[in-house]
Amino acid sequence: MTRFRYLSFLTDYGLEDGFVAACHGVGARIAPHAQIIDVTHLIPPGDVRRGAAVLAQTVPYLPPAVHVAVVDPGVGTARRGVAVAAGDSVFIGPDNGLLSWAVAAAGGAARAFSLTNSGLWLSQVTPTFHGRDIFMPVAAHLAADTELAAAGAEIDVGDLVTLPTPERLVHDGTAAGEVLTVDRFGNVQLTVTGADAAEIGVKPGGTVLVHCGHRQLILPYREMFGAVATGELVAYTDSAGLVSIAVNGGNAAQRLGLPPGARVTIAAIPQTIRP
Amino acid sequence: MTRFRYLSFLTDYGLEDGFVAACHGVGARIAPHAQIIDVTHLIPPGDVRRGAAVLAQTVPYLPPAVHVAVVDPGVGTARRGVAVAAGDSVFIGPDNGLLSWAVAAAGGAARAFSLTNSGLWLSQVTPTFHGRDIFMPVAAHLAADTELAAAGAEIDVGDLVTLPTPERLVHDGTAAGEVLTVDRFGNVQLTVTGADAAEIGVKPGGTVLVHCGHRQLILPYREMFGAVATGELVAYTDSAGLVSIAVNGGNAAQRLGLPPGARVTIAAIPQTIRP
Amino acid sequence: MTRFRYLSFLTDYGLEDGFVAACHGVGARIAPHAQIIDVTHLIPPGDVRRGAAVLAQTVPYLPPAVHVAVVDPGVGTARRGVAVAAGDSVFIGPDNGLLSWAVAAAGGAARAFSLTNSGLWLSQVTPTFHGRDIFMPVAAHLAADTELAAAGAEIDVGDLVTLPTPERLVHDGTAAGEVLTVDRFGNVQLTVTGADAAEIGVKPGGTVLVHCGHRQLILPYREMFGAVATGELVAYTDSAGLVSIAVNGGNAAQRLGLPPGARVTIAAIPQTIRP
Repeated sequence: MTRFRYLSFLTDYGLEDGFVAACHGVGARIAPHAQIIDVTHLIPPGDVRRGAAVLAQTVPYLPPAVHVAVVDPGVGTARRGVAVAAGDSVFIGPDNGLLSWAVAAAGGAARAFSLTNSGLWLSQVTPTFHGRDIFMPVAAHLAADTELAAAGAEIDVGDLVTLPTPERLVHDGTAAGEVLTVDRFGNVQLTVTGADAAEIGVKPGGTVLVHCGHRQLILPYREMFGAVATGELVAYTDSAGLVSIAVNGGNAAQRLGLPPGARVTIAAIPQTIRP
Repeated sequence: MTRFRYLSFLTDYGLEDGFVAACHGVGARIAPHAQIIDVTHLIPPGDVRRGAAVLAQTVPYLPPAVHVAVVDPGVGTARRGVAVAAGDSVFIGPDNGLLSWAVAAAGGAARAFSLTNSGLWLSQVTPTFHGRDIFMPVAAHLAADTELAAAGAEIDVGDLVTLPTPERLVHDGTAAGEVLTVDRFGNVQLTVTGADAAEIGVKPGGTVLVHCGHRQLILPYREMFGAVATGELVAYTDSAGLVSIAVNGGNAAQRLGLPPGARVTIAAIPQTIRP
Repeated sequence: MTRFRYLSFLTDYGLEDGFVAACHGVGARIAPHAQIIDVTHLIPPGDVRRGAAVLAQTVPYLPPAVHVAVVDPGVGTARRGVAVAAGDSVFIGPDNGLLSWAVAAAGGAARAFSLTNSGLWLSQVTPTFHGRDIFMPVAAHLAADTELAAAGAEIDVGDLVTLPTPERLVHDGTAAGEVLTVDRFGNVQLTVTGADAAEIGVKPGGTVLVHCGHRQLILPYREMFGAVATGELVAYTDSAGLVSIAVNGGNAAQRLGLPPGARVTIAAIPQTIRP
C-alpha cells in the first residue's frame, strides 16, 4: 500500500555540496513513487529555531506528506530521532524541538515513535549524516508501504522536545513580542499576530507605535508594503498572519538593526497625538 | 482534461525561506499530475527587467507549460494579475512587463485575461503573497482541467504592460546597445545580437572595438571564451545569440565595471589600424 | 524501451540564471518519463576537482541513472564530450577528468564513447553551452530509448582523461594527505581515509596529532563533532569515510586557514606524551 505521495525536506545542509542530492537519491531508491518537495536547505547551520519557524509556516500549504526536517547540531549524540503523526502528515527528524511548531500547527502530535528500528535505516549508518542514513530512509519507507508503528518504540507525545512557544503578550493596549524571523527581503516578522494587533486597535489604514531597543517609531499600518512610497517603513499583517515591518523596496532588518530574538512592542496611537 | 504537464516557476523569493515550497505545495494539491520546473528564484528583489530577461531566454527551451513568474514590487496594489496565451504556453504573473519579453519570444500574446475569477484562488488571499495565493493556484487549475477563459475577464492584448524592447541601434558601421544582463560567471551580455555584429563586419576570428564609458577596448571576437588565454578579455556570440564580453576563467563585469543598463557600442576595426 | 528512470545533474552554472532550467527543459522534452536529481549547481566556476569530489561522494547514493556533469572551462575547445558506462549507470560530460573519480567509485569505466553523433544534439549547438545543447540532450536520449553505442565513436577507456587520485601516503605511523574539499559547514575533509587512520592507531576515543603548514595540533578523535564542546576542534571519520576536521558549531576551514589542496599529516600520539 502506498501511504504518501509526497515527501518534504528541510535542512541546513546548504546547496553547494551533494548532501541534499544524496538524500534525494536514498528516497528515490526506497520510494520511487514519491515526489520530494524541498522546503529549504539554507537554514543557517544549527539554527533550530529558524528551521522550526520556516517549517511551521510552510507545511500548511503542502499536501499530506512525510515531512523530513534536519537541523541537528547534536547529530550522533544522545538526542533521539522521532516520527510524529500530526494532522494528515508524519514529521521526521531529530527530537530537538525543530518539528514542534509545525506539529502544533498541524493540530498537535497524535502519536510519536523513537526511530529505533534499524531495519529501516541504510545498512551502514555514519555518526554525522543521519539525514541520509536514518531520517530519509525511514521517511521513504513510511511513504511507501511501512506502517508508522514500525518506525520504532512508541513514546509519550508529552515527552517530545518542544521549543518554547514564540513569546507574545497582549496587555493594557500594547502587544509585546520579539522578532521571529527575517526573510530574504529583510522583512521583520514578529511573534505578534495580526489578531493581536487588531485587539489593541492597530488595523490597516491606521498607525502603529513601535518600540524596539531604544528606538520608538511611528509607522503606517497598511494592507501591504506597496501601499507606502519606495524607501518608506511600513507595518502590516504578513502572509503568515503575523505583524511584520518592511521597507518598501528595501531591507527593514538592516535599516532597523532587528535580528531574530530582538524584543519589539507595538501599540495603537491615541487619536489625539497622531502626527 | 489535463491541459499541461508542466508548470515553470520564476520569482525573486530567494531560497532561504519557505516561499517557493509553499507555492510548490499549492500547485501539487491542485494539479498533482503536473511537474514544476524552477527557472530561478534568485532574481534580485523587485528587478522586473532582470526577471524578464532570464524568463525570455529560458522559456524557448522548456516544454509547453503554464509559466508562472512573480517579480512583483507592486503586489497588493492596483496592478492586475494576468494570464496570457502565447505560442503553445500560458504565462501568468503580475501585469508589470515581467512576462512581456518571454511572450514576445513565444510569438506574441494571442489572448489575455485579467485574473478576476477568485474561484480559482486560494480561499484566503493575503495582500503580500499573490504567488502562493493567486498566481500558482490559477496556474495549477489551468494545467489541470480549467479553460484559460475561466481565469477572468478577457482584456485587449494591446493593453498588457510591456517593457521597452532592449535598446540597440545598428548604424554606420557601429552597433550601439546596453548591458542586458550579467550572469553567474560575470559574463556581460549586450542587447546587441550576433547578427547585428555580423552586419557591421564583426565575426568570429576577427577583432572588435568596444566603447563603454570612457573606455575603449580592442578585443578578439571568438567562437567561445575558451579560445583566448586564461585571464584575457574576449567578445563572442553567446548561447542566447547575443554579443557578450567575458574574461576566460574570470569575471568581465567586475573587471570592466559594467552593470546592467550600461551603454556599450561595438564596431569593426578597419584592416589598416588593426594592432 | 525506457532505459533509465533518473538523470542526475551537476554543474557550475549557479542558480541565479536560467541555465539549469533550460537544461531541465531540454531533458523533459526528450525524456518526459525521466526525473532529474540535481546534485549541485554551485561548484565554483571551473573548479573541476571540486566537481569531481562532490560527484564521486554523491553518486553511490543515487539510483541507477544517466549522470550529467558539466564543469567545463574548456567548453567549445578541442576537449571532447564523452559518455562512460560504469556500474549500473552512464556518466556524461566533458572529458576533462570531472567524471573520473565517480566512474572509479562506480567500479571503473566499462565502455566509453566520444559524443560525435550530432543526431542526438539540439539542432542548433552554441559553442558555449554544451550542457544545454549536447550533454543534456544526449543524456535524455540515452535515458529514453537510445543505445549507449549510438552516442558516438567508441574510444579506449584507457584514453579517458582522469584526475590524479587524491594523494595520500601511509608510512611509518603517519598518514600524509591533503585537503580534498571543504563543505558548507567549514568541515575540512582530508584525502586520508578512516581506514588509514585506524592503520596508524588513530581511532575514535583517542587523540590525533595533526600537522598542517607550520601548525601542530593535538585533537580529540571522536565518532562525531557533537562529542566535543561547542567551539572546540575535533577530528573524526566523516560520512564519506574520510578523516575530517571540524569545529563543533563553527567553521574549521576558516579557523585553521585550510583550503582545498593544503597538505596535512596525521599521526597517533604515543601514550606517554598524551596530554
